[in-house]
Amino acid sequence: MAARESCCAGCYSFLFEYDTPRIVLIKSRKVGVMNRLVQLAILAYVIGWVFVWEKGYQETDSVVSSVTTKVKGVAMTNTSELGLRIWDVADYVIPPQGENAVFIMTNLIVTLNQTQSYCPELPDKTTRCQSDENCMKGYVGTHSNGVQTGKCVPYKATVKTCEVFAWCPVEDDTRVPKQPFLKEAENFTLLLKNNIWYPKFNFTKRNILPTINSTYLKTCIYDPKTDPFCPIFRLRQIVEAAGQNFQEMAVQGGVMAVQIKWNCDLDKSASLCVPRYSFRRIDNKDSVHTVAPGYNFRFAKYYKDASGGDFRTLIKAYGIRFDIMVFGTAGKFDIIPTMINIGSGLALFGVATVLCDVIVLYFMKKRYYYREKKYKYVEDYELGGNETYGSQS
Amino acid sequence: MAARESCCAGCYSFLFEYDTPRIVLIKSRKVGVMNRLVQLAILAYVIGWVFVWEKGYQETDSVVSSVTTKVKGVAMTNTSELGLRIWDVADYVIPPQGENAVFIMTNLIVTLNQTQSYCPELPDKTTRCQSDENCMKGYVGTHSNGVQTGKCVPYKATVKTCEVFAWCPVEDDTRVPKQPFLKEAENFTLLLKNNIWYPKFNFTKRNILPTINSTYLKTCIYDPKTDPFCPIFRLRQIVEAAGQNFQEMAVQGGVMAVQIKWNCDLDKSASLCVPRYSFRRIDNKDSVHTVAPGYNFRFAKYYKDASGGDFRTLIKAYGIRFDIMVFGTAGKFDIIPTMINIGSGLALFGVATVLCDVIVLYFMKKRYYYREKKYKYVEDYELGGNETYGSQS
Amino acid sequence: MAARESCCAGCYSFLFEYDTPRIVLIKSRKVGVMNRLVQLAILAYVIGWVFVWEKGYQETDSVVSSVTTKVKGVAMTNTSELGLRIWDVADYVIPPQGENAVFIMTNLIVTLNQTQSYCPELPDKTTRCQSDENCMKGYVGTHSNGVQTGKCVPYKATVKTCEVFAWCPVEDDTRVPKQPFLKEAENFTLLLKNNIWYPKFNFTKRNILPTINSTYLKTCIYDPKTDPFCPIFRLRQIVEAAGQNFQEMAVQGGVMAVQIKWNCDLDKSASLCVPRYSFRRIDNKDSVHTVAPGYNFRFAKYYKDASGGDFRTLIKAYGIRFDIMVFGTAGKFDIIPTMINIGSGLALFGVATVLCDVIVLYFMKKRYYYREKKYKYVEDYELGGNETYGSQS
Repeated sequence: MAARESCCAGCYSFLFEYDTPRIVLIKSRKVGVMNRLVQLAILAYVIGWVFVWEKGYQETDSVVSSVTTKVKGVAMTNTSELGLRIWDVADYVIPPQGENAVFIMTNLIVTLNQTQSYCPELPDKTTRCQSDENCMKGYVGTHSNGVQTGKCVPYKATVKTCEVFAWCPVEDDTRVPKQPFLKEAENFTLLLKNNIWYPKFNFTKRNILPTINSTYLKTCIYDPKTDPFCPIFRLRQIVEAAGQNFQEMAVQGGVMAVQIKWNCDLDKSASLCVPRYSFRRIDNKDSVHTVAPGYNFRFAKYYKDASGGDFRTLIKAYGIRFDIMVFGTAGKFDIIPTMINIGSGLALFGVATVLCDVIVLYFMKKRYYYREKKYKYVEDYELGGNETYGSQS
Repeated sequence: MAARESCCAGCYSFLFEYDTPRIVLIKSRKVGVMNRLVQLAILAYVIGWVFVWEKGYQETDSVVSSVTTKVKGVAMTNTSELGLRIWDVADYVIPPQGENAVFIMTNLIVTLNQTQSYCPELPDKTTRCQSDENCMKGYVGTHSNGVQTGKCVPYKATVKTCEVFAWCPVEDDTRVPKQPFLKEAENFTLLLKNNIWYPKFNFTKRNILPTINSTYLKTCIYDPKTDPFCPIFRLRQIVEAAGQNFQEMAVQGGVMAVQIKWNCDLDKSASLCVPRYSFRRIDNKDSVHTVAPGYNFRFAKYYKDASGGDFRTLIKAYGIRFDIMVFGTAGKFDIIPTMINIGSGLALFGVATVLCDVIVLYFMKKRYYYREKKYKYVEDYELGGNETYGSQS
Repeated sequence: MAARESCCAGCYSFLFEYDTPRIVLIKSRKVGVMNRLVQLAILAYVIGWVFVWEKGYQETDSVVSSVTTKVKGVAMTNTSELGLRIWDVADYVIPPQGENAVFIMTNLIVTLNQTQSYCPELPDKTTRCQSDENCMKGYVGTHSNGVQTGKCVPYKATVKTCEVFAWCPVEDDTRVPKQPFLKEAENFTLLLKNNIWYPKFNFTKRNILPTINSTYLKTCIYDPKTDPFCPIFRLRQIVEAAGQNFQEMAVQGGVMAVQIKWNCDLDKSASLCVPRYSFRRIDNKDSVHTVAPGYNFRFAKYYKDASGGDFRTLIKAYGIRFDIMVFGTAGKFDIIPTMINIGSGLALFGVATVLCDVIVLYFMKKRYYYREKKYKYVEDYELGGNETYGSQS
């Protein structure tokens, strides 16, 4: 027997012996069928759900994207302050080019001919005053337009406020025009060019599909039903698709998400990988749970007078910012996720046997009889001690 | 026997009994060897492919990135319209700073001294007219420069078009200069600073590697062979690396992707985690399947004359936008993916036995003999009925 | 027997026979307990670590985000060059609106009244000259401000440099003011509005939590301890939270990361999904391993004089760019990862038996006795030949 312990004999048996578990075959309709059913269920889950439905055999990658935008449209306004005026792209798109967003001005508060000088502050509870005592030289509040000089000067006939050194006259944004200034903005069109890339699979595609020709592109307008792949959008449609009212939104401004979804199954033809557009309002409408509702920012145009003095036109621009959000995942067959799913699927198979065993050995009438067959009891007389470990080993 | 049913006895046996499957050892060269080979194959796959090659033991994270850019270079132009003129960074980089992109103007159509007034529209099939009847007051088309007044006025000696209220004179962008305006742009240099971060592993790195000193940086130019880690790029090289011609691209403009790939194995030294640059043209060249080929946008510089009247210089800027796309995944050892892979690997191991069993029990001469050994048939005489379930249970 | 080979009999036995492995039950305290302990360990790992701790039962998705910013604050400066001057948002935020970043100018070099003309180049080793011989007509270097005319003209009393055609006078950025120009910038406040979206679970949330009311928002300032959810930040705090000194950083400029982390467990209440802010300096401080330390860019304001001649004010703006980086993962229960983990967990269970077998069969005194019980040796006399495959099959 000692010979069999020898290494060579060991690897001999290792190589040329084949070991397979001994099985009890129990002829029993009930258990047999049940066993198969459980296995079937597991198989169905692994094949049907994991592989067919959830594509568990695929490796996934997320999208890398680039977006360019182009706005078209002109609007005419007629106000006492600015007179008859035409607004074109260069006027209302600020900044002229963005990366994943484009801002379109729909409303504005203009303050003409501001110069660096001294003037009364906009009246509010902190700036109103009766006399110079109420004003602190050098004071600057969070909402100040400038630095207080310490003087108290008349703002209007009745009202006196602290004087500030600032761009004067200071902007009065207390009342936003109730009507959006550029009503016609709702008819402007937005052209989106989106190029996506899945680095892992080195797959690129454009939202302007190769099947579309330029004559169609010159005339089409996106419509979820009729023109789902036309990359030209009418602003009003975008806003309405998100369940909002354009004219209402245009007053205070806001932020819209133009979501482009690129979910692609790269095991299928590339032509099936197409963009899906959806729209959502991002900014918080209700002014209770937010500050500065809507969306606006300030910018200025700077001028010099004949004598070289600086003056500027300050514009508080309200408008709609369209954030183009591109996302999605591409899937392609890969051996590893496949094997992981198969492997764990096989493991689950074991469950079937375990389940049936429990029933056979604990709930069936003949359980003792079956146990006899399945189990072989081996008594072990040693009393737990360290001498048990073989000395040869 | 009923005593053995008792709980305490149950947990006694549960704790102090050890069950292991009974095995048939079949001495057969063929099957033995085959069995080992199948197991070897599975082992090779699990170890070699999943772990060594695909690093299945790693958890992954995707990159968070920040990019800053700086362009250098000047160009001189000499045209009848603008005369001798020098262009520096402040002139051709619009907007002056971007986030993940930088636009460099290479061509432009200037329309000087536009004022808000009345002038004939640019002639096209919708605006040409013989008499006022052809023009509709208040009409605004998609491509209009302004609002029609309803008059029909001479545009050129022969041509008459509808009059519009607009920024006049209207821009004539019908013919783009065939020659790029800023030819020298191809020699401009672009400095990229990129800082990446892997939040899950809290690992940060810059594309300016610590091994590089500033004297080298002052002089180097990126080159895939000789200077793969120099963050300064010559514009022409970028475009050519993407298989494009700079001068050709500069005419109509375009969008280039500068891709920075950060694939890092964080189990190895951090110094091995380096950026890889690659370049790709994003916009669609062929004008058949796209609208507005190339890349351009309009912006204006606003002025006031002595009397305070507004006028502007409208610029339609053609140029190349460089989108810096940073992507990549970092991997680091993690227990969970490791265990998942090991677990499913083990499960696959079972396949070996199953396979050999099939052969042994169905294809070998002695299959009946082996079946005898492997299987033990237990007849179950009951006739499938509900009385089979033990009453004690 | 041949009958049993028939298909129908086959599926009969397939359906109505139930096979379960035969087991040896070894009564041994040691092995039994050990076996249970190993199983317990594996169970503990699968349940405790994979499921409870790492939430292995969840599918994950990464965030899609949109950010808007608003800066408030004014600063006053008094220099010989510009005189007494006030700076407000429209002056120091460039460009007026960004997407995921906002730049605040803290220091600047102004070059007033530049015109397109001829002037001496800034003196450095390449531009200094004694006579016209030293200057090359048409030469443009990387750092040139214009195109050399070939003349050598006096720059200062003693120094002569090559003449260039450029925007003159050329900018002298050799010495950056040691003091930041807009010191008060440290007290400016930054309002961040962030809207996130997890497409896979269609879950959206704002960083302005519904529990916060607008009165609180009007007054609060972010503080990691007391106001962790206030979206309004004081610039100095951001910089100091990253362990930097604002005034120091303001001189040369820099880039700060405002990191917003959205890690959400969507199996729990949505109200537990809240943003976590952290701050980090991105640009490289030490000027040894970088070029152009800090952060700056050039832009110009363009003017026309009475005669219609162009001139501009060139500004080299140093400042701090705040990059808002939004990241995070949301997890939600999903059947597939759960099954994968359970499956591979079950597979690991097998390990316990294997381990114990090794001990029982190789290290225990009675190993031969146990082997007897576990194994059944089946001799196979055939000499590996092709006749072994059954003809019937």
